[in-house]
Amino acid sequence: MKRKLWYLLTGLALMGTLAFGQAEVAEVVTEAAEAVEEVAEEVDYFTDAKQLAIAIDNLFLMICAVLVIFMQAGFAILESGVNHSKNTVNILMKNVMDFSLGVLLYFFIGYGIMYGDGNGYFAMPSVFGPTEVAPAGEYTTAAQVEADFEMDWSLFSTQVDFLFQVAFAATAATIVSGAVAGRMKFAAYLIYTAVLTGFIYPLSGYWTWGEGWLDAMGFHDFAGSVIVHAVGGFAGLAGAIVLGPRIGRFGKDKTPMPGHNLTFASLGVFILLVGWYGFNPGSVLTFTSIDAIQNTMLVALNTTLAAAAGAVFALITSWILDKKPDLTMALNGILAGLVSITANADIVTNMSAIIIGLLGGILVVGGIKLLEAVKIDDPVGAWPVHGLCGIWGVIAAGIFGGAPMGAQIAGAIAIPLYAFVTMFILFSILKAVGVLRVSEEDEMIGLDLSEHGQSAYGD
Amino acid sequence: MKRKLWYLLTGLALMGTLAFGQAEVAEVVTEAAEAVEEVAEEVDYFTDAKQLAIAIDNLFLMICAVLVIFMQAGFAILESGVNHSKNTVNILMKNVMDFSLGVLLYFFIGYGIMYGDGNGYFAMPSVFGPTEVAPAGEYTTAAQVEADFEMDWSLFSTQVDFLFQVAFAATAATIVSGAVAGRMKFAAYLIYTAVLTGFIYPLSGYWTWGEGWLDAMGFHDFAGSVIVHAVGGFAGLAGAIVLGPRIGRFGKDKTPMPGHNLTFASLGVFILLVGWYGFNPGSVLTFTSIDAIQNTMLVALNTTLAAAAGAVFALITSWILDKKPDLTMALNGILAGLVSITANADIVTNMSAIIIGLLGGILVVGGIKLLEAVKIDDPVGAWPVHGLCGIWGVIAAGIFGGAPMGAQIAGAIAIPLYAFVTMFILFSILKAVGVLRVSEEDEMIGLDLSEHGQSAYGD
Amino acid sequence: MKRKLWYLLTGLALMGTLAFGQAEVAEVVTEAAEAVEEVAEEVDYFTDAKQLAIAIDNLFLMICAVLVIFMQAGFAILESGVNHSKNTVNILMKNVMDFSLGVLLYFFIGYGIMYGDGNGYFAMPSVFGPTEVAPAGEYTTAAQVEADFEMDWSLFSTQVDFLFQVAFAATAATIVSGAVAGRMKFAAYLIYTAVLTGFIYPLSGYWTWGEGWLDAMGFHDFAGSVIVHAVGGFAGLAGAIVLGPRIGRFGKDKTPMPGHNLTFASLGVFILLVGWYGFNPGSVLTFTSIDAIQNTMLVALNTTLAAAAGAVFALITSWILDKKPDLTMALNGILAGLVSITANADIVTNMSAIIIGLLGGILVVGGIKLLEAVKIDDPVGAWPVHGLCGIWGVIAAGIFGGAPMGAQIAGAIAIPLYAFVTMFILFSILKAVGVLRVSEEDEMIGLDLSEHGQSAYGD
Repeated sequence: MKRKLWYLLTGLALMGTLAFGQAEVAEVVTEAAEAVEEVAEEVDYFTDAKQLAIAIDNLFLMICAVLVIFMQAGFAILESGVNHSKNTVNILMKNVMDFSLGVLLYFFIGYGIMYGDGNGYFAMPSVFGPTEVAPAGEYTTAAQVEADFEMDWSLFSTQVDFLFQVAFAATAATIVSGAVAGRMKFAAYLIYTAVLTGFIYPLSGYWTWGEGWLDAMGFHDFAGSVIVHAVGGFAGLAGAIVLGPRIGRFGKDKTPMPGHNLTFASLGVFILLVGWYGFNPGSVLTFTSIDAIQNTMLVALNTTLAAAAGAVFALITSWILDKKPDLTMALNGILAGLVSITANADIVTNMSAIIIGLLGGILVVGGIKLLEAVKIDDPVGAWPVHGLCGIWGVIAAGIFGGAPMGAQIAGAIAIPLYAFVTMFILFSILKAVGVLRVSEEDEMIGLDLSEHGQSAYGD
Repeated sequence: MKRKLWYLLTGLALMGTLAFGQAEVAEVVTEAAEAVEEVAEEVDYFTDAKQLAIAIDNLFLMICAVLVIFMQAGFAILESGVNHSKNTVNILMKNVMDFSLGVLLYFFIGYGIMYGDGNGYFAMPSVFGPTEVAPAGEYTTAAQVEADFEMDWSLFSTQVDFLFQVAFAATAATIVSGAVAGRMKFAAYLIYTAVLTGFIYPLSGYWTWGEGWLDAMGFHDFAGSVIVHAVGGFAGLAGAIVLGPRIGRFGKDKTPMPGHNLTFASLGVFILLVGWYGFNPGSVLTFTSIDAIQNTMLVALNTTLAAAAGAVFALITSWILDKKPDLTMALNGILAGLVSITANADIVTNMSAIIIGLLGGILVVGGIKLLEAVKIDDPVGAWPVHGLCGIWGVIAAGIFGGAPMGAQIAGAIAIPLYAFVTMFILFSILKAVGVLRVSEEDEMIGLDLSEHGQSAYGD
Repeated sequence: MKRKLWYLLTGLALMGTLAFGQAEVAEVVTEAAEAVEEVAEEVDYFTDAKQLAIAIDNLFLMICAVLVIFMQAGFAILESGVNHSKNTVNILMKNVMDFSLGVLLYFFIGYGIMYGDGNGYFAMPSVFGPTEVAPAGEYTTAAQVEADFEMDWSLFSTQVDFLFQVAFAATAATIVSGAVAGRMKFAAYLIYTAVLTGFIYPLSGYWTWGEGWLDAMGFHDFAGSVIVHAVGGFAGLAGAIVLGPRIGRFGKDKTPMPGHNLTFASLGVFILLVGWYGFNPGSVLTFTSIDAIQNTMLVALNTTLAAAAGAVFALITSWILDKKPDLTMALNGILAGLVSITANADIVTNMSAIIIGLLGGILVVGGIKLLEAVKIDDPVGAWPVHGLCGIWGVIAAGIFGGAPMGAQIAGAIAIPLYAFVTMFILFSILKAVGVLRVSEEDEMIGLDLSEHGQSAYGD
């Protein structure tokens, strides 16, 4: 462009010299041409300004993806800490495989289902294969970028979008491992985690985030209180019911089954809190407009306030009920606040965030008491935290954030029910063919020795 | 350049007044007009470039806030690791509540005091309530942004600013929990932490960062060696003195009281190191000018160098004194280096950072020996690390960074004294009404069972 | 604004056609001049757009540096967890000192060797001293930036470049601490780590990244499969051979020597995974062109896919061989995948990344069996993970990424051989003068008590 301007204005200068005879005019116009050329040269950077917006958006999403992946560490040691030490290797292994198998299954199948073409209820899996993503960037100029994408200021690399999404899929899967701790065969767990990350989670994910029927209804589940957490929570509940309780958990010979290491549990919860700053703020999915920036920061603070209120009110509630300030309840309260705010952090005020987290904190204590009362053995409280508070989160989006209540209720029922039923069937089949639960003897020895032939702890 | 263009084109206008008449000129001018229009079109992106700067600044501060929040995990397991296992639940619970109560208290009261309107010595708490922060971004156009803010290139969302600040408040609070470990009632601790994050920390914070009297003197405490760390360190010292030592810590029946898990302690220190990359670099508070970028990176490297030098020289010092290379001393050395550089990382050279960290590392060993000698029981060394090195940090800002020495000394005396005296009074009142220290029996059993009814560790 | 300019300048053209000499023309041209002035004013922001690119690049590298530094935490607790608890303090101390001494040695000597002026084989150490880096930014205007640097859109502060590089040097050093665990004197280790980070690592680093002879050959080792990991892996192998196995590790009285805490080991591996998102993506070293963004995200996803495939196939391989799903093998598989992809993540497709990780996972199990067979005692599997998979990574860059195979083979031989031989000599000298291995009695007691006079664990 600068060349064009230069010729035009030099031409203008020549014209001036010819037509008006005045050398002064020519000189002045030439100088003007040079000045404009200088401007034009600087303007070349404009295309780069657009690249910078893309850089910021992608960097932001990558950082958030890494934070969500860090949550795997949090889940692993939280679940390790609140269970018996004889089942530690098993719990850790399940978390490692949730991530590892989950990444591969979601790569080959899940991602295609979740963001594929479908009729609103079912989407066809299109293999996200190697041909689609070449190592060299396909977009070499800003013009190409603009041509290929409707979005002007936000353009994610498919690679980082996948990374962010797969971290969510792995999160949904890993929630279950705590609920079924201490009695499920490792091979059965591998089947479960492959099915969940490859098929079950992607399909209900598609209903909302893949522009399916719930999305069409206006269902608002910002970062996945129900889509991610309640799917995990209700899949875990199905597992806990089909498996039955651990030996000695209920009945007349019942023994307390506290965790073996609450420092691990606490560190796990703090890591989950940190990871949630990727989970929620990252779900704004763009970061370069003033509105997006403001909204991202609102989400980050609401997440913090809900976590804090959840911890304080879970502690107060359990303190009143049990007469002692119980650490695991405070930790569950943090998670309850986090899950509760996940559906609505983008559309509620700070004050509402505190109320949502506060009620989540009370709810989680109630949920734990409820499972105890009906004798369902969920060793880590996966259902109260992720299932119950997940549902509360999407309802709160309606109450405090103005999301359409009909759609919220539909989503709050449909997705948990879907996860529960499909997983109940899967676990029942595994039970029927005898591969679900370990023998009584193996359970007493512990899964570490019986299933893995090793202990987590030694001299 | 704009002046130049102005004169040139005004000159052209004058020439036009004098003479011309050819159609060619008209054509050329039309083409020139089109070219300039093209330029103008591109210029529309300029406003977006301003948005990008805002995006970068806010993203930067959010990442730093998350890193500082991660420090809560570091403090929790460090303090857990260096104390007796019978007090682990209590320590972890205190850390969870420092953060949770701290966030709520600082939200409703502290933030308003710290950045409120005042007379330089006291500020009125103005509730940071829900009406002030709406979920929708208030600034929808760059023009509005520019109109409402004097700053051109740095504009923080109030939400992320609060998030960063509250992480600092929680840090100040959590430092104390280690100093008073093993003998304080949990309820007393909750009162303390609410008072510190809601009132005490915000007020002295206001003196410097809220543009109060210390700021007016030119006091330089970059990221809070004294404002954050010495406040925590001296509040902890007050608590340790008022409480008195743990049973058996000194006197003729004294027993060594080593920590129960140095892997936790080490992991905690590494996490604190990582978190400090938010604490210090984030305190530059802007990131989009060349100077700010250079300064941020200087801060990051100085932080690293001081930590490394602190570790090496704390190890050497303690090795000479105690004849054995002691891990806890090396860990304390890292923290000593970090606290020492916090006040001055932005205004000293790399070489000075090494010297500052090195002296911090020697100082912390001396401080631990000093407390031992005067029989003050600070189980985690909170005062040597955060109190003593905090003061050293602001003095070093004067020696190595050219900060006005009078102001540095004033700040180094006033803030620690203020924290010590107010907290000494608070702890003394709690002691007088009998809610401060647990019974001898409960202390021997351990706070986990006596205060919380649970153990951190089991089978 | 563009409309305004258009009308003004079209008007000017029409006026010019119709008549000249009129005062109206003068007025119109004056208005045009004002419009252009407005454009020019906005153009002043262009320089800031350039600053923004610099801001993003530096922020990106700083975040990646912090992630790589976080890897120190991962190595520390991984190595702690997979060793005997009686050597825990020693392992943790070594990790603390790798970082602390490493930072200082690399600051004063290593960085100068690695990026100094040399003849392609040797570079002169130029002290990276305090005079070179002033606290005030040297570049105060964009013009200066442009004048001093050839790069237009990527400009790193020397400070952050050092921070990123030193984190790599510390990684190379810390790999060794696991291989020599349980029997090396602490003083000998301090000598080793100073030599490696100050001299050995920087020199071979210089051969490729400092534009030495391997770089001239076209050797492609993207983020350092060989330059960082194999250097550590082969230095560790040298140490393991010169030291000899731990008492009771092989021979007829051999006892199993499992780790003491696999939750630590698992958390360590998850932290390493998270840190690798700084290690690999950060090595793209620029982030503001569309190609760089796409490539960074490809690197991030390839890293994830290789880790996942490594875990799954190491598990399958060891499950088949040993009949039990072994957690440590799955963990080693994650690391094997990560090391294998490190050399080539930028030039291979997603599908290739899976294959590279998969083969890395199989290879690491084979490598562990091989060391077992030849009776070399590498307690953490440092050589199979970092040495063997490091070499596989650079070979894979040739097979899957089109890197010149001759250069890849040259690098895959020269650098590991160099690290092995130099370290073998160093360890042999230390052995000859009797400072390498602790006494048999001290080894049986454990290094924690014998070398450090403290235990990692207590009540």
